[in-house]
Amino acid sequence: MALHEFDLIRRFFTGIGGAGPDIALGVGDDCALLDPPPGCQLAISTDTLVEGVHFPVACDPEALAGRALRVNLSDLAAMGAEPLGFQLALTLPSADEVWLAAFSRGLARDAGLFGCPLMGGDTTRGPLAITVTVIGTLPAGAALRRGGAGAGDLLYVTGTLGDARGALDVPGEAHLAARYWRPEPRLAAGRLLRQFASAALDVSDGLAQDAGHIAAASGLGCRIEADRLPLSAALVDACGRALASRHALTGGDDYELCFSVPPGKAEAMEAALAAAGEPVTRIGAMVPGAGVLCVDGQGEPITLERSGYAHF
Amino acid sequence: MALHEFDLIRRFFTGIGGAGPDIALGVGDDCALLDPPPGCQLAISTDTLVEGVHFPVACDPEALAGRALRVNLSDLAAMGAEPLGFQLALTLPSADEVWLAAFSRGLARDAGLFGCPLMGGDTTRGPLAITVTVIGTLPAGAALRRGGAGAGDLLYVTGTLGDARGALDVPGEAHLAARYWRPEPRLAAGRLLRQFASAALDVSDGLAQDAGHIAAASGLGCRIEADRLPLSAALVDACGRALASRHALTGGDDYELCFSVPPGKAEAMEAALAAAGEPVTRIGAMVPGAGVLCVDGQGEPITLERSGYAHF
Repeated sequence: MALHEFDLIRRFFTGIGGAGPDIALGVGDDCALLDPPPGCQLAISTDTLVEGVHFPVACDPEALAGRALRVNLSDLAAMGAEPLGFQLALTLPSADEVWLAAFSRGLARDAGLFGCPLMGGDTTRGPLAITVTVIGTLPAGAALRRGGAGAGDLLYVTGTLGDARGALDVPGEAHLAARYWRPEPRLAAGRLLRQFASAALDVSDGLAQDAGHIAAASGLGCRIEADRLPLSAALVDACGRALASRHALTGGDDYELCFSVPPGKAEAMEAALAAAGEPVTRIGAMVPGAGVLCVDGQGEPITLERSGYAHF
Repeated sequence: MALHEFDLIRRFFTGIGGAGPDIALGVGDDCALLDPPPGCQLAISTDTLVEGVHFPVACDPEALAGRALRVNLSDLAAMGAEPLGFQLALTLPSADEVWLAAFSRGLARDAGLFGCPLMGGDTTRGPLAITVTVIGTLPAGAALRRGGAGAGDLLYVTGTLGDARGALDVPGEAHLAARYWRPEPRLAAGRLLRQFASAALDVSDGLAQDAGHIAAASGLGCRIEADRLPLSAALVDACGRALASRHALTGGDDYELCFSVPPGKAEAMEAALAAAGEPVTRIGAMVPGAGVLCVDGQGEPITLERSGYAHF
């Protein structure tokens, strides 16, 4: 028997992530209603995941739901924003109740974990795709943007790079698979970095490409020391150091933050992030000029076949 | 040559709908930033249109873009909200520059017309689909909701019904085609109705089904007098009166407002809407009980094969 959209929403998409202090009206009307906290700016971001393009065909719906929310939360983290709620546009070939139950369970778990309730959305029939729009809050004027880095600012990343790309090479490796399916949105780090960073973004398309966005938006170049890139032991074991380093530079799907810090604030930043248990690594610096230069341990330029993910 | 996502965004999706007084940062960073007007609630709604499901294969991209925005603005109208801005998630089989130029042109025209700038979004590769998330503002506590109608409240609709459904029967009829491709979001009517209506929604899935949502959310039934349904001359000419009436009840894609008004406010509402040039028609009333009863000119029940659009 066909499941009607309204029954589907009631059964699988009510109460996801709880009520939310700033949500006056959630799922079920023409619009959701928000009460923005006074004095706050809102940050809003949208990401689409398409089956066969951004995730494998016939993957686990519970993991997929979590990933769809997490990659969006990473954009909030990159601005220093805190989650308020999200909209879900889910396109499905059919209303498969087993699939929906698992998807809903994964979504509820991560929406609860990150305090980001489902406000509303749309369910439609078509090729499987998930579009999430997240909304976050931050103090007015405090957002971390891509432009704003100065020449001489030090360049950092959170966590480790290349793991998600490594999961494609070695699908059975549990740590790498977890890094692909459950990227950690660096919300706490982003919030702290509002005090220190001159520019920031999240690494989704590959470090070399994404660092280039900070450089371009800041009217500078940047220099990345490949030997400094933080690599997990699991990635080095699975791929060897040379390929691990290449994945860290161009692999994509990392959802770590890349950010610049003026030298005078670097020590305080490192102390604050360490105290919060948020690992960061200095990987290079902003330099006069344009573009991204990657160098090896001898200071020799590394030639990259591609700088990151091409969307088309 | 492949068009890179970043070039694509710069060329086709910058400046759509202008700057927007409440938008602190638009397209090009990890998030857009909004400054919510003090004392306002925000209304947010998401709709997806999938090729071959919600619009015909190989249709005019300029018209498609306008329609995608307009059906979302209709949800703001239904709450009485005014447009602030929107997010666009566009999934495309390829980065076809001719298609993108036309799509962008259609989007810019309607975003400008309705004062609803593009804030951000995502472009991805995959089967053609468009997800728009609109954000609107309204005075706190003033939103028109689906629940809240009282027994005896009069039921109204804006404009005429059934035209978009009629366009499927008679594709060459210009008025009906325009009603399908360029539905008019009833923003001015919605704003005025904040003073008068006890409940409201927009008719997207067919009047009989959507009026049922007002009834259910209000814990009532509703009675629709089919002879009162506002039909365009073009629809009656194209389909005959009997089929036109059936399309008005169950056709869907109308994007008119359906709303209830307490009898004591009906005269003032009709005067206010008439003064604003917003046509409304009384089509029935809210009644004790449950469900939607449609009656003919003799008061005899009309049996509907289906009440409206089924999403799965």
